[in-house]
Amino acid sequence: MKSRLPGALLNLLDQATRQSGLATTLKTSIIQLILDGVIAHHERLPSTRSLANDLKISRDTVEAAYQQLDAAGFLIRRTGSGTFAVSPEKPEAWTRGFNAKPATVGLSRSILPPLSVRGTDIEVAGGVVDQTDIHPFVAAMPDIDSFPLRVWQRLGARIIRSADRSLLMYGDAQGYLPLRDEIWRYLSTYRGVRCDTSQIIVLTSSQQALTLVANLLLNPGDLIGVENPGYHGAKLAFLAAGAFLKPLRIDNEGMVVSEIENGDVPVQAVYVTPSHQYPTGATMSPARRSALLEWSATTGGWIVEDDYDSEYHYEGQPIASLQGVDGSDRVIYLGTFNKVLFPSLRLAYLVVPKPLVKPVVAARTLLDGQSALMSQVILSEFMKGGHFSAHIRHMRMLYKSRRDLFVVNLANHLGEYVTFNPPTGGMSIACFLREPFTEELTVSAATEAKIELPTLRRLYLGGRGPEGWLLGFAALRPEIAERAMALLARTMEDSHKS
Amino acid sequence: MKSRLPGALLNLLDQATRQSGLATTLKTSIIQLILDGVIAHHERLPSTRSLANDLKISRDTVEAAYQQLDAAGFLIRRTGSGTFAVSPEKPEAWTRGFNAKPATVGLSRSILPPLSVRGTDIEVAGGVVDQTDIHPFVAAMPDIDSFPLRVWQRLGARIIRSADRSLLMYGDAQGYLPLRDEIWRYLSTYRGVRCDTSQIIVLTSSQQALTLVANLLLNPGDLIGVENPGYHGAKLAFLAAGAFLKPLRIDNEGMVVSEIENGDVPVQAVYVTPSHQYPTGATMSPARRSALLEWSATTGGWIVEDDYDSEYHYEGQPIASLQGVDGSDRVIYLGTFNKVLFPSLRLAYLVVPKPLVKPVVAARTLLDGQSALMSQVILSEFMKGGHFSAHIRHMRMLYKSRRDLFVVNLANHLGEYVTFNPPTGGMSIACFLREPFTEELTVSAATEAKIELPTLRRLYLGGRGPEGWLLGFAALRPEIAERAMALLARTMEDSHKS
Repeated sequence: MKSRLPGALLNLLDQATRQSGLATTLKTSIIQLILDGVIAHHERLPSTRSLANDLKISRDTVEAAYQQLDAAGFLIRRTGSGTFAVSPEKPEAWTRGFNAKPATVGLSRSILPPLSVRGTDIEVAGGVVDQTDIHPFVAAMPDIDSFPLRVWQRLGARIIRSADRSLLMYGDAQGYLPLRDEIWRYLSTYRGVRCDTSQIIVLTSSQQALTLVANLLLNPGDLIGVENPGYHGAKLAFLAAGAFLKPLRIDNEGMVVSEIENGDVPVQAVYVTPSHQYPTGATMSPARRSALLEWSATTGGWIVEDDYDSEYHYEGQPIASLQGVDGSDRVIYLGTFNKVLFPSLRLAYLVVPKPLVKPVVAARTLLDGQSALMSQVILSEFMKGGHFSAHIRHMRMLYKSRRDLFVVNLANHLGEYVTFNPPTGGMSIACFLREPFTEELTVSAATEAKIELPTLRRLYLGGRGPEGWLLGFAALRPEIAERAMALLARTMEDSHKS
Repeated sequence: MKSRLPGALLNLLDQATRQSGLATTLKTSIIQLILDGVIAHHERLPSTRSLANDLKISRDTVEAAYQQLDAAGFLIRRTGSGTFAVSPEKPEAWTRGFNAKPATVGLSRSILPPLSVRGTDIEVAGGVVDQTDIHPFVAAMPDIDSFPLRVWQRLGARIIRSADRSLLMYGDAQGYLPLRDEIWRYLSTYRGVRCDTSQIIVLTSSQQALTLVANLLLNPGDLIGVENPGYHGAKLAFLAAGAFLKPLRIDNEGMVVSEIENGDVPVQAVYVTPSHQYPTGATMSPARRSALLEWSATTGGWIVEDDYDSEYHYEGQPIASLQGVDGSDRVIYLGTFNKVLFPSLRLAYLVVPKPLVKPVVAARTLLDGQSALMSQVILSEFMKGGHFSAHIRHMRMLYKSRRDLFVVNLANHLGEYVTFNPPTGGMSIACFLREPFTEELTVSAATEAKIELPTLRRLYLGGRGPEGWLLGFAALRPEIAERAMALLARTMEDSHKS
């Protein structure tokens, strides 16, 4: 009997290549030509139409490859003037990632064997850079001074002193069960998450959650919708998995859901921060939430709900999670303790539909096995003792009062430079620069005043968005924040005069 | 001016597709046909020659795809009788991974959107399963009872009680500097590693090290040489990164280096456990070490040196690491504290050539940010106080005496079933079953006696290798090990009779 395989394969191969394989190969090839110097720094590339014609492939494929190259920083696309190559040896062009230093490709290709394509992408993008101390105006940083360190020390010392040897062994790779119970209690009480303990997976960080989700759900070349502007760490995780990003506009109701389907290529998943959109702070409206769940139920697309600082909502009742409203088991929910308690803790969690539990845990064992057991035990005792919810209540009041003072001082000292809406939650505030002020000028003034000014535009895909700042207010004592604002205003005035 | 791009791209695209893209697409397509039921369980597939003919592609491409499918468990290739499909819905076919439960694809494709191809691969393979307690004959497990828990508790309680708030913040993403200093001191003194502190990166586990290395150095479709038999966690990490595995034979001098270049497709990297090969225990001979370094220097291929239990060498002087002898900056060295101290600790390290430090740290921040700071501080104090080297000295003597008793008892009780060579180091011993005994029969007898018998054949690529066991001896008190052996022998005798 002749095998049916070749015919079936020919169909599939053709389809698969058309859909994604070719775009990935095209992207890889262009990167290689840039690295090899065949395409020069700032050389103008053909339009998608003309390249598609020359290569006899579809324009969609070229568009997908250009988009990915753009997001990875290998291209700059300027409306009206064209598309230009960016060589990683020319560091001035790199603006990706928060607080990113200009990246250089340290790996000399002539001396050492080259990195893989994704390795080069990652090196060029520079990873996720976290701040190691608190100073004005580091964004999304908790107030370490208010953490109940004494309680943690007492619990921690007691647990470590009385640790029996079973605590030294491998634990449950899905997470310490008493901790999963506490997380379940918290999420179902405060976030309206509907799940049972068996759906909760303890991880080290939301970054790990995003990496897992990206690798399990997305094939290279798949399209994921991301908020634009949006969280850089998520975008880097999706890009590292070989996915393409589809930017979705943000307005004051959050993500513009109708944009998900406005292209030819189907979107496989959407990444969303509905509680307080990062970085704009917008809370997703009920209508948009329904529309997103509707999209997901209809198309089978996944929703990745990053509820990273939902604990801090200052106006009225917080809105329950999308996960709790979803009736189709399509929402993957993630949260972290590293921002709410302290960054060096390294504990976070995923809540997934039941059929995903096994593959997520398996994939997690491939990444790094499991989370450290001792800190899981300490945290579960901390939560069981009521310290977690007490801490959140305390911090919510503290951060709310800091936000209130911050926006007043911001308007006073820097109102002639920026416009902003007071955020209804979260730990940072997005400010938009008034004409004619630019990120470049204001950052240079801030640097002179030894103040860090996290910028906004790089949180837009390809750096194409309005100029502005994302200022952290939660970790700063009000008098320190105000002093920094006054100093910044003075420096900017001086530099404007000169 | 007409762009030179299209011509250059056409060349590259053609080449890239021929080399790897097509094999990956072919693999993906066959998996889809198996999952969709178009190819039935145990259906015979066309030979590589005939499929290559039918699809009008090169036989090398089909061979690469079949090899990857085989390693991932979607095919069984039997010399002489052909190649057969394996459906993941038929769990009896899965033997991959240590102690792997029969895997089932829990994700119903009709109800939920499908996992990505790599997600499906990972779910089917089942991840790396670590044992949560010690019992005969769990392999590669340390003796928790001998860990100086009191010292650790005292140090830990002191550090956590006196922790200042800077310990709560993000630390250096590369690792806590005093810990890197201690690791440097240990590696240069005891393992002959030549590096400085700036080349050491603190991670959570060797699994994380392997995942990082796989993603940074290997493109999908690249070939990495792996020891056969070899460590399953490494193979899973390379497969998850889309690499193809080239099996390299092991003899009593370790990896047979001459096999690296016996194919058409160039090998990009080699994964090796030279101190005590996993699982055979063979120490790589000086001649083979030279040959491997020579291969690397000549071809530019990377060497991934996993020195996971080099601490435990029982006969004569331990041989220094490959890293220390390498003159070409091609060796990536990894080690872990989780096996030497205790599994729930979650600390390990990579030593990389200087140009790789930045990309590895960047990639690590994308995976999970950084390692927990508190345990890094405790470990660095533990090492600084001399407790680490004292512990290793103590365990080396203890494990050596356990090995000596274990092999005597093994010969007495189970000598009629297996042959073995006493390992010169490490924590496990590989045993080969004598005719006519099989893994299936002996495991079923062991299960009856409530004894775990980790099997050997699944550590061979595609499960094609001799049948046997890999028995852990380090964590077991000799009287417990002997009792289990006697019980096992009795049960096997009974089941043999009946």
